[in-house]
Amino acid sequence: MLKSLNLCEFTPGEEIKNRIIEFKKRMEGNGISFAIIIQNVDLFYFTGSLQNGILFVPVDGEPIFFVVKNLNRAVVETSLEITPIKKDKDLKNILADMKLLRGRGGMELDVIPVTVFERWKNILGYDNITDASPLIKDVRLVKSPFELEQITKSGEIIGHVFRKAKEVVREGVREIDIDAALTAEGRRMGHQGFLRMRGLNQEMMSCYVTQGYSATIPSGADVPIAGIGITPAIGQGASINRIERDMPVIVDYGGGYNGYITDETRAFVVGEMKEIFRKGHAVAEDIIEDAMTFGKEGVCGTEIFTRASDKAKKEGLEDYFMGHGAGRVGFIGHGLGLEINELPVITPRHKIMLKEGMVFAFEPKFIIPGEGAIGIEVDFIVRKDRLERVTNTSMDVVYV
Amino acid sequence: MLKSLNLCEFTPGEEIKNRIIEFKKRMEGNGISFAIIIQNVDLFYFTGSLQNGILFVPVDGEPIFFVVKNLNRAVVETSLEITPIKKDKDLKNILADMKLLRGRGGMELDVIPVTVFERWKNILGYDNITDASPLIKDVRLVKSPFELEQITKSGEIIGHVFRKAKEVVREGVREIDIDAALTAEGRRMGHQGFLRMRGLNQEMMSCYVTQGYSATIPSGADVPIAGIGITPAIGQGASINRIERDMPVIVDYGGGYNGYITDETRAFVVGEMKEIFRKGHAVAEDIIEDAMTFGKEGVCGTEIFTRASDKAKKEGLEDYFMGHGAGRVGFIGHGLGLEINELPVITPRHKIMLKEGMVFAFEPKFIIPGEGAIGIEVDFIVRKDRLERVTNTSMDVVYV
Repeated sequence: MLKSLNLCEFTPGEEIKNRIIEFKKRMEGNGISFAIIIQNVDLFYFTGSLQNGILFVPVDGEPIFFVVKNLNRAVVETSLEITPIKKDKDLKNILADMKLLRGRGGMELDVIPVTVFERWKNILGYDNITDASPLIKDVRLVKSPFELEQITKSGEIIGHVFRKAKEVVREGVREIDIDAALTAEGRRMGHQGFLRMRGLNQEMMSCYVTQGYSATIPSGADVPIAGIGITPAIGQGASINRIERDMPVIVDYGGGYNGYITDETRAFVVGEMKEIFRKGHAVAEDIIEDAMTFGKEGVCGTEIFTRASDKAKKEGLEDYFMGHGAGRVGFIGHGLGLEINELPVITPRHKIMLKEGMVFAFEPKFIIPGEGAIGIEVDFIVRKDRLERVTNTSMDVVYV
Repeated sequence: MLKSLNLCEFTPGEEIKNRIIEFKKRMEGNGISFAIIIQNVDLFYFTGSLQNGILFVPVDGEPIFFVVKNLNRAVVETSLEITPIKKDKDLKNILADMKLLRGRGGMELDVIPVTVFERWKNILGYDNITDASPLIKDVRLVKSPFELEQITKSGEIIGHVFRKAKEVVREGVREIDIDAALTAEGRRMGHQGFLRMRGLNQEMMSCYVTQGYSATIPSGADVPIAGIGITPAIGQGASINRIERDMPVIVDYGGGYNGYITDETRAFVVGEMKEIFRKGHAVAEDIIEDAMTFGKEGVCGTEIFTRASDKAKKEGLEDYFMGHGAGRVGFIGHGLGLEINELPVITPRHKIMLKEGMVFAFEPKFIIPGEGAIGIEVDFIVRKDRLERVTNTSMDVVYV
């Protein structure tokens, strides 16, 4: 019954097996004897299940998937053998009896709060534990064919949403009403409901609809066009501003299918656009097409950033590139997967070599203060010989 | 311009002042000399702004609100004086020069990840820092009249959504389509976009639409009716199941206005309900009405739980009360505010005396395995002499 009610595929056993093998290789290379995975996203990645559980991975043995609840769901979701426990404290005796707690342990210390970590050290009676999150991020960096299928389906949701946007972006409609209609359309098309961003204070919406003033106001978040939102308690997203003629409406939408996130942006206009926006859009498109001429496995992320930045400069748009003044962000691309802030990040500083199977959003955008914003965002899968678009949705401005 | 584009009111200066006074009282009582607030929700609570910043609170001096970005937004949002900084590292010299780092410090160690805490201890060159989160939760526990106004507005969104549900719950419609329509309706009515839940792995949706089988499946989350969702990567929420006649559809919806969360549940039925559901609904209503006859300031949370549990037992529904088997949850109520898992929690164990201004969701629910679920959830404001409903939406089953 569970399977029939899920729209999405369960993670194949072969996937789980390979992911754990890759993780163990990195554990070995870093002198980590065992790892304890408790964050829900990592748990889903390594087990296929997001139920309340703990995955114990010894560097030289079989992983043990402890499940507190719900056992019935975990059983159908994961291909791993399950050890049912009543509470997390039960781990201590089991692991001690098996003499598995020795050497240096690893946990996800980039997301586990201090008091939770203290509690775990007490539960285990063991405190030689280091941060294993860089190894986990490194495993998750390269996507398998199964993961790419989920990402493709996630991208299809974006296509539906942009087609819907063509119907609902109209003069006089509030940004928030467009957001409501697009978010609903995505959900009907199988959107998982929310997107995940790793780390403290990292929050995001599935849909950003912004125009003119509201698109130019920088936010506290590391996002070029965050929107002003409707409350300082959220501080981002669509506002109650009404759509005006002759000004681009920026729709930045995040697909989410079976955990996997995609993230693209298009511009919609009622009427015509000023020359500065036409130019910005043409340069953004040119930057993306240029990246597709040379981007592939082996190219460095910094090269992609630099060529984009140089193009913006050559066209006299450097003051607006990726934000204006204090609102400028330091990246033009970010990795996608189960979280929206995965590796690789495409910046002038992060020297990361692209590798087949990496996936990232690429978003040349220009913010013209006092006017509005323009730009495009597309998602790329890195291939041996090229960058492949995740969606086939046109990059053109949509005139409605 | 910022003010005019915000739908919601900024936090008044008097509020901020009082909140900090209350926090400092608790710091003094607990021997904490200074606190450093970095979690976005707490930062919003104590400053009125959720921008990228840090609030430093010395027990015997004025708070210092450091803002990294966006300064312009923070300036209009907060009544506190702002000290602009380029990066968080700048704090060290400023605080050292002012000789403010002495005694025992406090941070939000229930949410700050281990590596972030390590980084902060390095930045400050100071490591005598304890968990200040219990004090913060205690300040946030009792809501001010301003906060209650926001909560009332949040509750009004729920009213709109339940009225919409009467139109969209129809035979043959998928749970997920109802969710899409209701979430969109809430957003159009000013919903902030998402809800917050404090702590590692705490995630939730704004809307849960569940019927029959999908409402009876326990989840890994501590929620009586979580739904099965459409993917194991989320594991909760509406499914792609289609609504059938004569079976209650449970709609659990969370309002969100200006940061403040409300959370109510109603049952909708196409056709008629079986006797077991009729009875469950009547008992749930009776439990709520009973709580309103004796609940008020000074009553203990455990008493509310026990009387509810006793009523369920007397009616022969104890096997279904708050879940069935491994899916049973240990609470019947939870505090509401900027986060959905605030204090007080209403359980058989937590001896918390109700106090005027506390707000909690109260949700007697029955899960009948193999059949479906039934129940009601309403939100209460604790008053000196009574429990006051946040919304005036009828608790009746809605037959559509």
